[in-house]
Amino acid sequence: MPRFFTTRRSDSVASLGERRLIGEIRRWLGSASPPAPFGIGDDCAVLPGMRGRLLLTVDPVVHGRHFDDSVPARSVGAKLLKRNLSDLAAMGGRPAAAVVAIALDPRVRLSWLEGFYRGLAASARRFRVPLVGGDVAQADGTLVASLTLLGRPAGSRVLTRTGARMGDLIYVTGALGGSRRSGRHHSFPPRLAEGAWLARQRQVRAMMDLSDGLAKDLPCLTPPGAEPSVFAATLPKNRGASLEAALGEGEDFELLFALAGRSDSAAFEQAWRRAFPRTRLSRIGAFVPRGATPDGALSLAGYRGYEHLR
Amino acid sequence: MPRFFTTRRSDSVASLGERRLIGEIRRWLGSASPPAPFGIGDDCAVLPGMRGRLLLTVDPVVHGRHFDDSVPARSVGAKLLKRNLSDLAAMGGRPAAAVVAIALDPRVRLSWLEGFYRGLAASARRFRVPLVGGDVAQADGTLVASLTLLGRPAGSRVLTRTGARMGDLIYVTGALGGSRRSGRHHSFPPRLAEGAWLARQRQVRAMMDLSDGLAKDLPCLTPPGAEPSVFAATLPKNRGASLEAALGEGEDFELLFALAGRSDSAAFEQAWRRAFPRTRLSRIGAFVPRGATPDGALSLAGYRGYEHLR
Repeated sequence: MPRFFTTRRSDSVASLGERRLIGEIRRWLGSASPPAPFGIGDDCAVLPGMRGRLLLTVDPVVHGRHFDDSVPARSVGAKLLKRNLSDLAAMGGRPAAAVVAIALDPRVRLSWLEGFYRGLAASARRFRVPLVGGDVAQADGTLVASLTLLGRPAGSRVLTRTGARMGDLIYVTGALGGSRRSGRHHSFPPRLAEGAWLARQRQVRAMMDLSDGLAKDLPCLTPPGAEPSVFAATLPKNRGASLEAALGEGEDFELLFALAGRSDSAAFEQAWRRAFPRTRLSRIGAFVPRGATPDGALSLAGYRGYEHLR
Repeated sequence: MPRFFTTRRSDSVASLGERRLIGEIRRWLGSASPPAPFGIGDDCAVLPGMRGRLLLTVDPVVHGRHFDDSVPARSVGAKLLKRNLSDLAAMGGRPAAAVVAIALDPRVRLSWLEGFYRGLAASARRFRVPLVGGDVAQADGTLVASLTLLGRPAGSRVLTRTGARMGDLIYVTGALGGSRRSGRHHSFPPRLAEGAWLARQRQVRAMMDLSDGLAKDLPCLTPPGAEPSVFAATLPKNRGASLEAALGEGEDFELLFALAGRSDSAAFEQAWRRAFPRTRLSRIGAFVPRGATPDGALSLAGYRGYEHLR
């Protein structure tokens, strides 16, 4: 029987890295996992045929990875819900219910745990998400909390990551980079209203949320044969954030979407400003044929983005 | 800022134990968590008002707790799905979709992880559960996998833990005890067909699955003012299992339910044998007024059941 842990890197999960590991998992699951958007591969899974579609997504927070002692427990609880809400926003969904499974060391401080659940509850009330169940289990030396969020499409359409075409314009909400340093990675507002509004605009063709950094996430929205043409000068950066941070740091929780190239972008941007006068919107580039990016365009391949399993 | 881990037991999660901790969590969540069966407190949460009710449940497997090196990886994957299916069976539900969040140490052996996902996929195909999404995150020194299962009522009725009345008869499917030693804790069949059938029988008033042992679980089904009158001789025990194991070991994944006291139990048992000739059914006792248990009845309070946080 193979032992659970290995000391040889080539036998270990770390030898693959996150992206290849997820590819392997899809292969191992085979026909048990339907293709996206009905299975793995988008911000949420779309469940068809249940008298109205449902959206389902899951994301964890892990001690030592997503938070440490410097983050207040209440913020960790709020972040756990909000990072899932951000995935739901990226499909144009609204929340219906959530369950939380927590595995933790018995030595975790009770006052910490109370803060965590109180922060989660305050955020759940604010965004009207009933917390309908969960599980508590023991794990040694850590705390892992996973929240599964169930939602419904806010309107008649769900926006997936696929659907962008050659020539489409690339937009991003808010500003990027510096999320960890500024504390924005736990204070951010999930873009639920914006996502629902964007899903109603027919000329918006594909959408996702930015969690691993633009350089790593944008390829997921890029249509086959295309390449994103993005210029450093057009990127909305948070105060004090470097270009590198804006492209690769991650935890931005902003929306990234593609607008049909032949649509009236000025009218679209005006409608946005009327609907969301306080949420910045930036056109950062367009999808062009591969190899046809103009001089001065950013080479995103040089920025790694956040790697989950190193 | 309070530190995450504490060395003083009185400040720690361990000072409460599982049951009191869950009570505290419900208090901390407050109005963010609706009352059971619409929130915490039953085998699944019942989501109303979405054009047909939905059932939602979550359960994890944790390295060092629910499995170790002696259990094949495929069995761990299968068990993760089946323990959630057992919760769904206990409401009279059928599965619709599942998502899996895994947090693991990068040193976990790839071949182990492949076995885990292949076992999960085989079980998902067998029980027709589309695995529609998930998440992979890093956690140091452990592996925690949480599966969230979404289901629908198989018929028109959902069976909750509340609803049993004084005088109702107590039944259990299969046999109890020795699950760990025999390997049944990962080879068990979830009682989906049986649960769906029982939910259609009007004279069945309440149901749950046995996961922490009869002594700990039966009080959850017991109506106010009542006490279960159960005799050792009527308990169905697995071969080689002691009375103590049958009452307190847990991981039985059998169904426990209450039949209306004035119903025709002989006709009910005959109908069961026709429907499930290969699944044993045992009448183990009845709910009697508190303090009125006959001589020789088991005192369940003396058996602890499985304690999750010690």
